Amino acid sequence: MDKVQYSTSVKDINQNYVEAQYAVRGLVPSTAAKIQEEIKNGKQYPFESITELNIGNPQTFGQKPISFNRSILASMLDPSILQHQSEDVQRRVKHYCDKIGFQIGAYSQSPGYPVVREAIANFIQKRDGTVEKPNINDILLTDGASAGITLMFNLLLKDNKDGVMIPIPQYPLYSAVITQCGAQQIPYYLVEEKGWSAEQTELEAQYEKAKQNGITPKILVCINPGNPTGQVFDKKSIVEMIQFASEKKIVIFADEVYQENIYVENKKFISFRKVALELNLNVEIYSFHSISKGITGECGLRGGYMEITTKVDPDVHFQIHKSKTVMLCSNTIGQLMTGLMVTPPTKEEGCNDLTIQQYNEECRALFSSLQRRAAIVTQFLNETKGVSCQPIEGAMYAFPKIELSEKFIQFAKEQNQEPDVVYCLDLLKETGLVVVPGSGFLQYPGTYHFRMTILILPEERLLAKMKIFKEWHETYMSKFQ
Amino acid sequence: MDKVQYSTSVKDINQNYVEAQYAVRGLVPSTAAKIQEEIKNGKQYPFESITELNIGNPQTFGQKPISFNRSILASMLDPSILQHQSEDVQRRVKHYCDKIGFQIGAYSQSPGYPVVREAIANFIQKRDGTVEKPNINDILLTDGASAGITLMFNLLLKDNKDGVMIPIPQYPLYSAVITQCGAQQIPYYLVEEKGWSAEQTELEAQYEKAKQNGITPKILVCINPGNPTGQVFDKKSIVEMIQFASEKKIVIFADEVYQENIYVENKKFISFRKVALELNLNVEIYSFHSISKGITGECGLRGGYMEITTKVDPDVHFQIHKSKTVMLCSNTIGQLMTGLMVTPPTKEEGCNDLTIQQYNEECRALFSSLQRRAAIVTQFLNETKGVSCQPIEGAMYAFPKIELSEKFIQFAKEQNQEPDVVYCLDLLKETGLVVVPGSGFLQYPGTYHFRMTILILPEERLLAKMKIFKEWHETYMSKFQ
Repeated sequence: MDKVQYSTSVKDINQNYVEAQYAVRGLVPSTAAKIQEEIKNGKQYPFESITELNIGNPQTFGQKPISFNRSILASMLDPSILQHQSEDVQRRVKHYCDKIGFQIGAYSQSPGYPVVREAIANFIQKRDGTVEKPNINDILLTDGASAGITLMFNLLLKDNKDGVMIPIPQYPLYSAVITQCGAQQIPYYLVEEKGWSAEQTELEAQYEKAKQNGITPKILVCINPGNPTGQVFDKKSIVEMIQFASEKKIVIFADEVYQENIYVENKKFISFRKVALELNLNVEIYSFHSISKGITGECGLRGGYMEITTKVDPDVHFQIHKSKTVMLCSNTIGQLMTGLMVTPPTKEEGCNDLTIQQYNEECRALFSSLQRRAAIVTQFLNETKGVSCQPIEGAMYAFPKIELSEKFIQFAKEQNQEPDVVYCLDLLKETGLVVVPGSGFLQYPGTYHFRMTILILPEERLLAKMKIFKEWHETYMSKFQ
Repeated sequence: MDKVQYSTSVKDINQNYVEAQYAVRGLVPSTAAKIQEEIKNGKQYPFESITELNIGNPQTFGQKPISFNRSILASMLDPSILQHQSEDVQRRVKHYCDKIGFQIGAYSQSPGYPVVREAIANFIQKRDGTVEKPNINDILLTDGASAGITLMFNLLLKDNKDGVMIPIPQYPLYSAVITQCGAQQIPYYLVEEKGWSAEQTELEAQYEKAKQNGITPKILVCINPGNPTGQVFDKKSIVEMIQFASEKKIVIFADEVYQENIYVENKKFISFRKVALELNLNVEIYSFHSISKGITGECGLRGGYMEITTKVDPDVHFQIHKSKTVMLCSNTIGQLMTGLMVTPPTKEEGCNDLTIQQYNEECRALFSSLQRRAAIVTQFLNETKGVSCQPIEGAMYAFPKIELSEKFIQFAKEQNQEPDVVYCLDLLKETGLVVVPGSGFLQYPGTYHFRMTILILPEERLLAKMKIFKEWHETYMSKFQ
């Protein structure tokens, strides 16, 4: 048969998209999917099934959704079951329906339901303890935080001279979308030994270096709590970053999707908004939040919001809203779940003690299990020879450093692969554990890491898997001494 | 107070995004929103509330969702109510859960649930009556058709020399996203007098003209049934478009979201895929479908799919899948609703007669009401002096031509507005009817139109509104004779 002549080959399409990489669903996870398929077809591996630690996806491990929230969503979709729900669920459904009707199958306004944005404004004000309350026109509901971040990159980045300062290591959404936009990455390295701290001097140095290379730094990305690194910024760090952005007149993207996920006693979540209001500096900050993380964990429903936390040029504000209209609206179930995330049942609302108690118990159980798992993973990794891991203060991941011998690095070179990729592929093939090579998140040259989630349930299973990891690593590495 | 110095003004951001316009949610609808707010605050208008005919959003008029589908989604969200559902609902829930668990809060695979993509493959094969059945790797689930179209434009358009052939009039998503991508629109005019037909000679002429201007035509957009124009292409037209694309080696985007919405006896839906398979030509066709239209009408849930209907370069195929991973997955409720749309309850599945009967009755009632409304709107418009409207064969809109006198055009010029914009704004202010000026869809120079949906319910209300329109138009126009 003749070779088919396609009208479109890769060289004809958008090269920025061709170049973009998204490691969280890259080579290692796709190899894992193949192995899973092979196992189904009878091929033997030294494990029964793969364990997906590549992506923060709590419900795949059986994490339960909060039942109050789900009952409300279900009743909005099928009002005929409302009679079987509790009074408190019925009241909340009525609250939403008074504003939007049983019309969740209709497009909403492009920025999202006003009733949900109002609830978010209240939540933000209360969380930050500020006199100021956000205006709902500064809040836009999005299909997960990723959609908001992508929209804002596309809108704010003008051409291939524009640059985005991203922490290294970073969440690969950033590097992928910056590449898709045809803009430039400006890395600033977090200091691993200081618990992945962000240093003023590093920001300054990388900023200057970019300018010298003819790049215009436009956006500073701050991820707090950190992904993949798990650190929680203290107030001093946030103050420094805001002062830096204000001086340099660059915009801050505050990725605050893990704001509920803080596990250590001595740290708490401080929003960039709160600090910016206190400092009263001229600076433009966009904050992003999501229903996928926290204890809500509703990744599949795709909900979240972006908040324009400070005054921006009204014409830019208009462009943000206009750009949002092209995609019509984010999905209404995700919108409502975002409202539910920020509106627990309360006495003031009229809820009875049992509802509140059950809700709080579910939340507490979810949170304390995450907290225990963060500790288990940190401990096991640090007890593994040749592995070290900064404390997982927040978020849902460990990003341990692995010491790779010269012999191993040579071994990887012979395969034309990054050393951490070879490591992760062999870990996968021999244990079924799917983790993401550090190179996908970027890392300090000459250091090697991987990212794994802390999400395995039940906790005994996590313990068992961590033991498997420890034994595998030590045996595997001994071959390359 | 000093003028605030913003670090980012409109000139600093992506000019392609600044230039993009999306008329369906543009000036007229935003004026309508202001009027609605004013009415709420007590301002008097000659109507009680605005009537949103600007957007195809059936459930805002009280169109009911199909109850079988909703019961299944609700039970997936809240399994505790499953016991209150019918056996047939329970069986279907079990079918989905056997494949994906009660894990709709987890991210799915990036292209979407395999169980849904398999259902779509079966649906397509049956719909087209072909021996060939699509491969599920050629089907990707999307948050509405818009998301799929946007992804594919972003991926396939390389630079500002690349052009997209779009029908005029067109759905403004196309012009907006092409502008956002920085690529070029290549208009081809549909012939209104021939029922908005697409003519081979026009395609050829516009193609050549673009080439002469240094533009590379890459994509041919075909909307069938037409939006905003409502025509249904016959087989001859589709054959011609496919032959044209094959000869010129350009890709076809087949926007087939209104495939269920065909109201005339002498026309039926013929997919581009079916014709392409028969012709057996080398041509690359992407087809888009949605849960927002048809009789499903679930706009808010944001679901749909794109199908790579013909062989494409495997490397391009890989890039499509890779690009989809960056956004993780489309929302799972929209995914499941897409599966439900293509999988009615059947005897083979084990459903009882009552379930099937109720489902069919709901569908029939929805469809026949749309069919009656299409006829009512066509008739009223054609009975209005100075207005003519091609038969609404399909989709959900009328796109009538309005004769505007020189005097009126002068009147509009004095306001620095397009004539059809002035017309639509006055229609809004005096009747509360929100329609979209034809200029937002683009139209043949010197002709004027507007788009309105046919979705008002109940039907008596539609009749009343059409009478209001007719009287308003004739009185208003008489002032400009």
